[in-house]
Amino acid sequence: MKLPFIEQNFISASAPFKESRIILLGCPYDGSSSFRPGARFGPSAIRKASWGIETFSPYFERDLGEMRIHDMGDLELPLGEKEASLRSVRKAIRKILSEKKFPISLGGDHLITLPIIDEIRRIHPDLHLVQIDAHADLREEYLGETISHSTVIRRVVDLLGNGKLTQLGVRSGTEEEFRFAKKIKSIVSTDRKSLRALVRRLRNRPVYITLDLDVIDPSLLPGVGTPEPGGLTFRDLISLLEELQPLHIVGFDLVELTPDYDPTQVSSLTASVILREMILAFARNPKH
Amino acid sequence: MKLPFIEQNFISASAPFKESRIILLGCPYDGSSSFRPGARFGPSAIRKASWGIETFSPYFERDLGEMRIHDMGDLELPLGEKEASLRSVRKAIRKILSEKKFPISLGGDHLITLPIIDEIRRIHPDLHLVQIDAHADLREEYLGETISHSTVIRRVVDLLGNGKLTQLGVRSGTEEEFRFAKKIKSIVSTDRKSLRALVRRLRNRPVYITLDLDVIDPSLLPGVGTPEPGGLTFRDLISLLEELQPLHIVGFDLVELTPDYDPTQVSSLTASVILREMILAFARNPKH
Amino acid sequence: MKLPFIEQNFISASAPFKESRIILLGCPYDGSSSFRPGARFGPSAIRKASWGIETFSPYFERDLGEMRIHDMGDLELPLGEKEASLRSVRKAIRKILSEKKFPISLGGDHLITLPIIDEIRRIHPDLHLVQIDAHADLREEYLGETISHSTVIRRVVDLLGNGKLTQLGVRSGTEEEFRFAKKIKSIVSTDRKSLRALVRRLRNRPVYITLDLDVIDPSLLPGVGTPEPGGLTFRDLISLLEELQPLHIVGFDLVELTPDYDPTQVSSLTASVILREMILAFARNPKH
Amino acid sequence: MKLPFIEQNFISASAPFKESRIILLGCPYDGSSSFRPGARFGPSAIRKASWGIETFSPYFERDLGEMRIHDMGDLELPLGEKEASLRSVRKAIRKILSEKKFPISLGGDHLITLPIIDEIRRIHPDLHLVQIDAHADLREEYLGETISHSTVIRRVVDLLGNGKLTQLGVRSGTEEEFRFAKKIKSIVSTDRKSLRALVRRLRNRPVYITLDLDVIDPSLLPGVGTPEPGGLTFRDLISLLEELQPLHIVGFDLVELTPDYDPTQVSSLTASVILREMILAFARNPKH
Amino acid sequence: MKLPFIEQNFISASAPFKESRIILLGCPYDGSSSFRPGARFGPSAIRKASWGIETFSPYFERDLGEMRIHDMGDLELPLGEKEASLRSVRKAIRKILSEKKFPISLGGDHLITLPIIDEIRRIHPDLHLVQIDAHADLREEYLGETISHSTVIRRVVDLLGNGKLTQLGVRSGTEEEFRFAKKIKSIVSTDRKSLRALVRRLRNRPVYITLDLDVIDPSLLPGVGTPEPGGLTFRDLISLLEELQPLHIVGFDLVELTPDYDPTQVSSLTASVILREMILAFARNPKH
Amino acid sequence: MKLPFIEQNFISASAPFKESRIILLGCPYDGSSSFRPGARFGPSAIRKASWGIETFSPYFERDLGEMRIHDMGDLELPLGEKEASLRSVRKAIRKILSEKKFPISLGGDHLITLPIIDEIRRIHPDLHLVQIDAHADLREEYLGETISHSTVIRRVVDLLGNGKLTQLGVRSGTEEEFRFAKKIKSIVSTDRKSLRALVRRLRNRPVYITLDLDVIDPSLLPGVGTPEPGGLTFRDLISLLEELQPLHIVGFDLVELTPDYDPTQVSSLTASVILREMILAFARNPKH
Repeated sequence: MKLPFIEQNFISASAPFKESRIILLGCPYDGSSSFRPGARFGPSAIRKASWGIETFSPYFERDLGEMRIHDMGDLELPLGEKEASLRSVRKAIRKILSEKKFPISLGGDHLITLPIIDEIRRIHPDLHLVQIDAHADLREEYLGETISHSTVIRRVVDLLGNGKLTQLGVRSGTEEEFRFAKKIKSIVSTDRKSLRALVRRLRNRPVYITLDLDVIDPSLLPGVGTPEPGGLTFRDLISLLEELQPLHIVGFDLVELTPDYDPTQVSSLTASVILREMILAFARNPKH
Repeated sequence: MKLPFIEQNFISASAPFKESRIILLGCPYDGSSSFRPGARFGPSAIRKASWGIETFSPYFERDLGEMRIHDMGDLELPLGEKEASLRSVRKAIRKILSEKKFPISLGGDHLITLPIIDEIRRIHPDLHLVQIDAHADLREEYLGETISHSTVIRRVVDLLGNGKLTQLGVRSGTEEEFRFAKKIKSIVSTDRKSLRALVRRLRNRPVYITLDLDVIDPSLLPGVGTPEPGGLTFRDLISLLEELQPLHIVGFDLVELTPDYDPTQVSSLTASVILREMILAFARNPKH
Repeated sequence: MKLPFIEQNFISASAPFKESRIILLGCPYDGSSSFRPGARFGPSAIRKASWGIETFSPYFERDLGEMRIHDMGDLELPLGEKEASLRSVRKAIRKILSEKKFPISLGGDHLITLPIIDEIRRIHPDLHLVQIDAHADLREEYLGETISHSTVIRRVVDLLGNGKLTQLGVRSGTEEEFRFAKKIKSIVSTDRKSLRALVRRLRNRPVYITLDLDVIDPSLLPGVGTPEPGGLTFRDLISLLEELQPLHIVGFDLVELTPDYDPTQVSSLTASVILREMILAFARNPKH
Repeated sequence: MKLPFIEQNFISASAPFKESRIILLGCPYDGSSSFRPGARFGPSAIRKASWGIETFSPYFERDLGEMRIHDMGDLELPLGEKEASLRSVRKAIRKILSEKKFPISLGGDHLITLPIIDEIRRIHPDLHLVQIDAHADLREEYLGETISHSTVIRRVVDLLGNGKLTQLGVRSGTEEEFRFAKKIKSIVSTDRKSLRALVRRLRNRPVYITLDLDVIDPSLLPGVGTPEPGGLTFRDLISLLEELQPLHIVGFDLVELTPDYDPTQVSSLTASVILREMILAFARNPKH
Repeated sequence: MKLPFIEQNFISASAPFKESRIILLGCPYDGSSSFRPGARFGPSAIRKASWGIETFSPYFERDLGEMRIHDMGDLELPLGEKEASLRSVRKAIRKILSEKKFPISLGGDHLITLPIIDEIRRIHPDLHLVQIDAHADLREEYLGETISHSTVIRRVVDLLGNGKLTQLGVRSGTEEEFRFAKKIKSIVSTDRKSLRALVRRLRNRPVYITLDLDVIDPSLLPGVGTPEPGGLTFRDLISLLEELQPLHIVGFDLVELTPDYDPTQVSSLTASVILREMILAFARNPKH
Repeated sequence: MKLPFIEQNFISASAPFKESRIILLGCPYDGSSSFRPGARFGPSAIRKASWGIETFSPYFERDLGEMRIHDMGDLELPLGEKEASLRSVRKAIRKILSEKKFPISLGGDHLITLPIIDEIRRIHPDLHLVQIDAHADLREEYLGETISHSTVIRRVVDLLGNGKLTQLGVRSGTEEEFRFAKKIKSIVSTDRKSLRALVRRLRNRPVYITLDLDVIDPSLLPGVGTPEPGGLTFRDLISLLEELQPLHIVGFDLVELTPDYDPTQVSSLTASVILREMILAFARNPKH
């Protein structure tokens, strides 16, 4: 006799690690949140909400069922210990990469992107980062700290070198951050023409995408650490993903969901639809 | 001495049953909700919220005060008993139709639409259904069940026959549902041109409208059983209603409001504005 | 390399089915809730909250780590289908019993207790039920229905026969329910003396315990379907469990947690502490 | 054909005005709330919640069904207009008294008690007030105002004269208020002995009871304008009502429920159980 | 030794009164709210939320740090006392104007605008009011009252005389209010062309701006007294502010934030970004 | 002309630093929370809520107005930086102590107590700690860390030496923590007799009190990082404070308030009443 039971991973991500090319990894670190903490609960909220959505995308007309995906669950991190937590994320990513799998990381706050990129660039030295985010995250330091979710992209620039950063959706930062972004020409408009030029420019280069969920307007996705009005609608984001589809994506992350600040649960639900769309857009036909 | 008291029906719906042509009926059934239950509280939440809105619509430039509307209140349904509950809805609709009145039903989950349409098609054998909804609801069965809020429109297709269904706003379903919708050509785009072609095609035919509130984007209306990002804005919906106004509408329903999932109460408020607009758009000059 | 990951079962319940004597089963059915639905989310909320508590009980001075417990997860039930859902619960219990394991069921609404007891009494014909609950649940019928969470204990009385029911904590019901309870002498006071007399009376008889979480005062546990003021404090409950410990318990359930009605999450947390205490009190040294 | 519909008054209060001796009146005024407003939504929240409770009290072993009760609904008050609002309350009470009926008023903030008592003392010149409340409400003035929810009982003392006030449950006030209370000996302890002495002292005198819901501990009833820890449990209150039962009660009110501050809805539910108990305790066998 | 402490005023508004040209004043009056009260908590919620945003605007490319701003804090108002409260607001504004400073008032409900405008017009007799609002607020009276948040703009018309009112964003009112607005031609469309014509027409005239936060769509800003769907997006508002920038603004207010109705806190956060943008748009280069 | 404005410090704590003997310090650090973060918002929530309570205590019959108290506000801490944050707390405490003032610290999570005690013991080498807390906090390490809110009291034991710790209210911990507590005899019962023996034993010794708000039952105070059922009632705590009053207290802290997890705001309100009571009990007649 077999009883039907509800699984607890992300929907459709029930293949064994060995047989999967796509790996989901929960990184529940939120020690560097500057405003509202709680991104530690992001990955489990995405998994839970995923059982209320379909596996089929009417936008890309594909189904998660076509792929083999493994969900590793959440890393158990030493709370409040930044260095040790980032080391733990780094180790997990290294393992995924060593098996030549496609890493999808769920934050946690934006700082988790730093060790991930540091690992991926060892395999893809020419790596380019596309950051989809409301905030520039380009501070040199923040409250005396150089390693934080407000400085993370500046540190990535240090790692990757010149001309390796594209920023989409940015609408908040200090005067200095915007000056720096202008200097390195990182901010790109999200209109169709600019995106197509970007895709042409990045073709044949390995690209990592980091999506901070606060890029979406807080009317739809209030459950983030630092909500910022004036963001993308869900449809804006789908169009953006459609445009970026031709890129050679080697991994991506989804960060900053803070589910306890949205009692309607729509933030988690939307995050889980976005994860479905990103998997179907970027992880289907890997070229690496 | 007369004291001014606050009424407890939908705003302006205080005429006696006998003198009213338009009848509101609350159907608080939510037994087939697949994700979040609580649509049972929908009709009373709409009534309560209606006392915070105006009776005048600046969109249609009409006022509810021009009509005679009766609010029957909520049916008392045997909880968890699908068959008995649907029978009770059916009986109430039969009574309204037998007096040649215009039925407006408030859900409850989407399954309530099934007995309503079954009754109306007895009077209007050529009935056409316009479904405004985020979800296709076209499954052949769901978790082993053929009668549920996920299969309800498929059952309506069984009842009404070929070519009698139009779907507006659909953005979620299984691959199979979309294939079926394509086969029966039910999904119509909501741009002005498509809507006008639709109105021309349906002119002179009796039309029933079922509006699942999840067609509205969850940024505005998170309080539904199955929120789905990427929906219509309120203004999109008003334009849509304006285009559909010339149709020969013989009844409509508003389903799936789940008020307890929206602590801001904006979902209930918006639902009650939508009800006002639909009454003013569709129930004013009945042609039947 | 081994990475530390967070598990998703109830804390400490990670032993394989085969090696475990104690089995947790989630029964997310809430079709018969008469007031507020949502008990379907109860079992997963208890599991999630359990990761915020200790495995050690300072009351019983024992640790969950001493036992081998398996968590089967949640049954996938056909929503809104009472008969089919109860059949599914029944099948799962039968399987657990057939392997001579100790069944612990997590509701869902109180109706799930009916098929469970019906299965257990086949093995233990002399079964006695101890119901810890705010509501008598002794109605002959409710809104025309004879099988519902308001009639469930009356149906159990039909199954088990005379003198087989004890009710603790009851403080709500119709006049007729209290009259019936008086007739069958089911209600027992929760003072120490009465409990000790009860334990003496039941010694050597197989006992099943059903705990409806609304027995706890809603100040502490508001997240239930039908909150009722005047309930037990947490310490009252611990004392009660201490007194009942000598009984020969053959299984128990914990029902009616409705987590979405408690935004503080304290209801889920408390339910998960109560589950820990009940396991340590009743499932440690099974005599059957 | 008769359909079963859900009523919208307080449960069981569906008798016509003429045939009822007991009258419920909603007074949704909250203009003098000093901390959190929203008591205007109190009466309708009590009515809605009442449909989730039983009509039978296991404490008094009586049922609301034994009485004829009429619910007038909520007065429509000019918002922000203190004088006009209080006049409107006064007029309604006068009407109820002129028909020799028993008035039960639902606030609204505590200020509504002032015009009510002023009307009742015209009929019962020897009227005594029993105030069950967390706050003394004995200020001479508050922020320059002499008529407010913080001064209301001081104004009642002005009206009724010396020795006509008893205060139960008070645990908050200024030093001056407590000094005044000591001077007029208004504060009485809630232990059984003191209450029995009080009942003996007041026997044969007409008594009005005003119950500010913040007398209950905010763990159970957080939805009030000015929560104050250290309050009565629900059982404490039931004992208190039992002791006061022999008094010659000529009317009572229940004020300060602020339902939107309690997302669990337990405050409204508890208030509606308290209203049931007070009706059964005080309005059953009127002696006036 | 100097320790870094977090300030409690609006971000960057820490200059002394004497040295500042721009003055923030909190007016926590909400006695005339007709639907949901609680605007009394608006100013403090804006201040608290401001510590989560940047001082730099990427829209106007300016920084609050360039100006000297003083935050007076909240007036302590006698609750429920309309006349006395409005007098207190009037006195504070008079003081600000007497020192030739630029007044920015934070509501509270919309009624606070009345005494402010009455003071400003004494200095600027030719004053024109630009009202950005979902509601016309043009009733002659409301529930018998002529001075309320629903009549406030009608009273301003009485004060300022003909042709001195422009209304932007209005989408709710009675039939009579819209008729009156048509008569006085106050409603202006928010498309670019209409706004430019307006700016040309008002050039060289002193203009006061009152922004009722409910003009923003409740999807983003649900925390207002009377939410109304169909409103402006945040970007719509920024465009509108950009167009109005050339006007000769002599003061403005931001009213009706009701923070406790938005548990996500996004309403307060958005209000504080809007305040930043309005300061940068209108208070930078004062011409008066 | 003087306008009455609402202050933003803790109620009555408006004296200048120089003139005050009692100093309030906000330490918004929550980097070591193991379950729910957000204690960073604790101190500001206590201040805001304090404006809704009285300055007079009916329990101690004293008024805050009798003392001179200064509120330093919140330290601005580098988020996610444990070492730097604790250094900043240490510096502030050192400053307070160097001026011979009485330090009252508001957390933040429990870890802030460590640097505070380390500073105080330099002045009072014989310092004894009385910890009022639901959790033992005696782990040797937690998730690989030795400095965290779960190990903080173990570290204090390391600092202060044997026999210098008393624990009241503890009801959660690992088996090992309870074994250690037994070994060092730190846990003391909260009955009157035990408390009096404790007071006799500690008489003449300098005592620091740390109160973790989770010692209070989560029915009243759900807004903490790690709620634990079975806690003290508010009245239990008042009795406990009364018993401890004779001690020679040299400072105290109040930690772990996590206000965003309590939408009713009762947690913050209760915390602010507790702070008032502790000031009146312990800081009035300092003997050091």
